[in-house]
Amino acid sequence: MADEALFQFLHSEIIQYVNSAEPGESENGRCVSKLENMGFRVGQGLIERFTKDTPRFKDELDVMKFICKDFWTSVFKKQIDNLRTNHQGIYVLQDNKFHLLTQLSAGKQYLEHAPKFLAFTCGLVRGALSNLGVKSIVTAEVSVMPACKFQVMIQKM
Amino acid sequence: MADEALFQFLHSEIIQYVNSAEPGESENGRCVSKLENMGFRVGQGLIERFTKDTPRFKDELDVMKFICKDFWTSVFKKQIDNLRTNHQGIYVLQDNKFHLLTQLSAGKQYLEHAPKFLAFTCGLVRGALSNLGVKSIVTAEVSVMPACKFQVMIQKM
Repeated sequence: MADEALFQFLHSEIIQYVNSAEPGESENGRCVSKLENMGFRVGQGLIERFTKDTPRFKDELDVMKFICKDFWTSVFKKQIDNLRTNHQGIYVLQDNKFHLLTQLSAGKQYLEHAPKFLAFTCGLVRGALSNLGVKSIVTAEVSVMPACKFQVMIQKM
Repeated sequence: MADEALFQFLHSEIIQYVNSAEPGESENGRCVSKLENMGFRVGQGLIERFTKDTPRFKDELDVMKFICKDFWTSVFKKQIDNLRTNHQGIYVLQDNKFHLLTQLSAGKQYLEHAPKFLAFTCGLVRGALSNLGVKSIVTAEVSVMPACKFQVMIQKM
């Protein structure tokens, strides 16, 4: 519980600070992109540590399963609830109770602020995948808080 | 290990970002003070959770012991190695292997960067104490990395 709280509070501080340090920009502007970049570098660092003693992954799906289970559990203390794919390079990771949205009031009232609370994690996933040799674009959407879907589009090299 | 890494990486990102977002300031200027403020708010939040089920503290020394043991262990995965006091409101907390300095190369080469790596934690301690009703000034010094001393000066009301 302690670690969860530390991460949650730090994450909030970062959002608040980045938001105030990038003035005059729209919700989906530089603030979100800065947060995404931070997440990317943290994801790169984390995945190196996490996979230090892991056997080589069989394929892309194997990598995605690792992200949904081991990686997600390490960072968010729970697994992804649902992983779907069209087998053509698109994966949808659904978290029914996303850790970093739980401190926001549910309801539609704060939906517009959701992108800021998801940007870091989008970057985190992209960074982790990137260091496993999978280039991707990661986006997120919320329909009902605190549930959340991350869409990973693999970029074929 | 996972949580430690997450905190460490996030902390580094914050330092880097705050440092770049507060340009034209000296090492000990606004960057350090921003980091200290972030730490303060995180410390306030954390101590509330940590002490939720803790019996009331007997006195100031009791509070300091809690910070050195329980609080430090939750955040940095180890206790403070040495706590000293002059019994007149000054406490010195020594950590012989401070978690957030371990990623810096030991030696004098990077000593000048140490303040940035300690500011958040100074705020963390000040925030935690503040929410326990103890007003203080917290400073830190490093003589040999990664050992570090935090000095807490209690402000009598």
